Amino acid sequence: MKLSRKICDCAQSPIRKFYPYAVAAQQRGIRIHQLNIGQPDIQTPPAFFEAIEAGRRDVLAYAESPGIPALLEAIRAYYARIGASFETQDILVTTGGSEALLMAMLCILDEGDEVLIPEPYYPNYFTFIRMAGGRVHPIPTSPEDGYRYAERARIEPHITEKTRAILLANPGNPTGTVLTPAELRLMADIAREHGLYLICDEVYREFIYDGAEPATAGRFRDIDENLILIDSVSKRFSACGARIGALISRNRGIMQGALKLAQARLSVATLDQLGAAALYGVDPSYFDATRNEYRRRRDTCYRKLLEIPGIVTTEPQGAFYTMAKLPVDSTERFQLYLLQEFEDNGETVMFAPGSGFYATPGAGTSEIRIAYVRCVEELERSLTLLRLAIERYNQK
Amino acid sequence: MKLSRKICDCAQSPIRKFYPYAVAAQQRGIRIHQLNIGQPDIQTPPAFFEAIEAGRRDVLAYAESPGIPALLEAIRAYYARIGASFETQDILVTTGGSEALLMAMLCILDEGDEVLIPEPYYPNYFTFIRMAGGRVHPIPTSPEDGYRYAERARIEPHITEKTRAILLANPGNPTGTVLTPAELRLMADIAREHGLYLICDEVYREFIYDGAEPATAGRFRDIDENLILIDSVSKRFSACGARIGALISRNRGIMQGALKLAQARLSVATLDQLGAAALYGVDPSYFDATRNEYRRRRDTCYRKLLEIPGIVTTEPQGAFYTMAKLPVDSTERFQLYLLQEFEDNGETVMFAPGSGFYATPGAGTSEIRIAYVRCVEELERSLTLLRLAIERYNQK
Repeated sequence: MKLSRKICDCAQSPIRKFYPYAVAAQQRGIRIHQLNIGQPDIQTPPAFFEAIEAGRRDVLAYAESPGIPALLEAIRAYYARIGASFETQDILVTTGGSEALLMAMLCILDEGDEVLIPEPYYPNYFTFIRMAGGRVHPIPTSPEDGYRYAERARIEPHITEKTRAILLANPGNPTGTVLTPAELRLMADIAREHGLYLICDEVYREFIYDGAEPATAGRFRDIDENLILIDSVSKRFSACGARIGALISRNRGIMQGALKLAQARLSVATLDQLGAAALYGVDPSYFDATRNEYRRRRDTCYRKLLEIPGIVTTEPQGAFYTMAKLPVDSTERFQLYLLQEFEDNGETVMFAPGSGFYATPGAGTSEIRIAYVRCVEELERSLTLLRLAIERYNQK
Repeated sequence: MKLSRKICDCAQSPIRKFYPYAVAAQQRGIRIHQLNIGQPDIQTPPAFFEAIEAGRRDVLAYAESPGIPALLEAIRAYYARIGASFETQDILVTTGGSEALLMAMLCILDEGDEVLIPEPYYPNYFTFIRMAGGRVHPIPTSPEDGYRYAERARIEPHITEKTRAILLANPGNPTGTVLTPAELRLMADIAREHGLYLICDEVYREFIYDGAEPATAGRFRDIDENLILIDSVSKRFSACGARIGALISRNRGIMQGALKLAQARLSVATLDQLGAAALYGVDPSYFDATRNEYRRRRDTCYRKLLEIPGIVTTEPQGAFYTMAKLPVDSTERFQLYLLQEFEDNGETVMFAPGSGFYATPGAGTSEIRIAYVRCVEELERSLTLLRLAIERYNQK
């Protein structure tokens, strides 16, 4: 039986594909330090669960297709606080940022259309774009340049008549780069001048470590027709399992198209929306505490990476990821070595091999992505294990 | 800014598009009896909420991409009880039956591929198929024939080299038809002989009123490669707002493709999965009580419809919908009349106009879909209002 060409074009998640090897290692009694998945260990604010328990009812009915009014209003007010004025009709609640991304692509892409994405990028972007019939056109960057991309000369040569949108994550997953205000402005200018959608995935907005305030392209008012924001409570409130996100745009055509999709899938989970609305009421000190904890982890991760001879890496400024180029032939082979041969005191470490974050064939093969979502002590040990393993792997 | 052709091809939900007129009528003080939306008033089993409250945890993490083990096992065991043997790897938990439908279409359709659907059909099928690049090819039926379609002569002439799948809802939404065992077997034979996927939307499985046992195409073992089942807890347990469904198939390629999509969207809401797993443990008497209540409603609805002079309708055998052909020029105009001009003792009634359930231009314009999801007393009154309104509308 024939499968669609587009589903055949998609790969298994590079972040999850070593899962069977990890299970086998655990069955041999090995403890694995998992730096491969962005699942934070930060407590979910109890307000989430309290709102869900208070929301118990006789009949768990469909919610409104665009989202429950309380959550739409909470999101609107949150954006107003960070200087971006939206109306509730500019906001659509989605099942995670993931659904917002898929809806955006379905609204703007036809067969053969292209989306420019700075490379390396979050691999699931590829799947959502391919499902809509589109293609990823990567904007190359390099570890040696700290993966920076926001320059006209790096981007404009890639714009063709097939280009429909620029998609960027800011703060960046997997690189941890944060655009400067001037860089974000430049990306908006390029999108506006070339008549492209600018899809800004800002789900890591609060995770910035060097004194900057949370930023959003939603503050720019000259790109109302271009801008599509992707948002989520998953990381902001450590509520990944709630699956509550949002698609936000002042472009009426986009919102009408997205509403058609929202009506077709009926609604987002009712109780999780109640919980998410309550999350937006947590005290701002929650963000400070979380940011301070991640800054310590960032500092530990970067310091320990620099102790590895031959490594190329840049201090990440945001999100909770960093990329590094390792002195090994292939990080996929090295990850297999870590799960099948290496151990130190019964422990090993997992990361996400870099090639899965690239569309360009052969790119990223000696890079890795690290998610520094574990406590400082575990990060210390994990990165010591990484250094030890590189030495032994290269002596084989 | 350009929108995709496929999103422009989709219409607003025909079930929800009269919403603004309903709001206006309510603001004038009119009470509207809503027979337009399939939102049951049956109590959600308390086990759902109890499991969610018991599932409170420090960190609300992503669930496993294919679904939590407890829910996968609950679904597997449920199918075993109704005579269909599946392994948990044949089951993928989805965000409602809606996501299962979209995933199925993305896995099998490329640009220009066609899906055969008996017409009238659930309108959101069109959106999911168009989003995957495919086209609906309707199999015509008629109110005079009770909307039956399971005959070779009605189906096989529509199969071409573009046909990839047959999609059917059994029990049927919007028609309330239920396939006989021989008819279901015939649909399986046609799919197998022509190498087509058979996508069976069985979310109304328990809602059958004439003594038959819940059926599933999952019992047939000669269509393992063809069959894709769509399932959901929404109607079965009156838990529409949980957004928990399932895609079920023994075809490994389909399940691998769907798993790629599942990994890309990360997971389904964690707490709702816990609640849904508990739902599968409710006492079977729950289904008997629910079925008896809906049978009374079905009987009331059918009896009252037959009192309307000139109506064409058939006794529905399943789900909680029925279609009827009314003696009016256009049920869209008639619905507007009901919301803008008609009232009897300050009350009016809403249904879903039939044309939105058809792909064939001009079809269904004098038909309506009724969702008999309200109590018997309200149905009596609603259908009296419908009869009165038809009389007055035709005297205008």
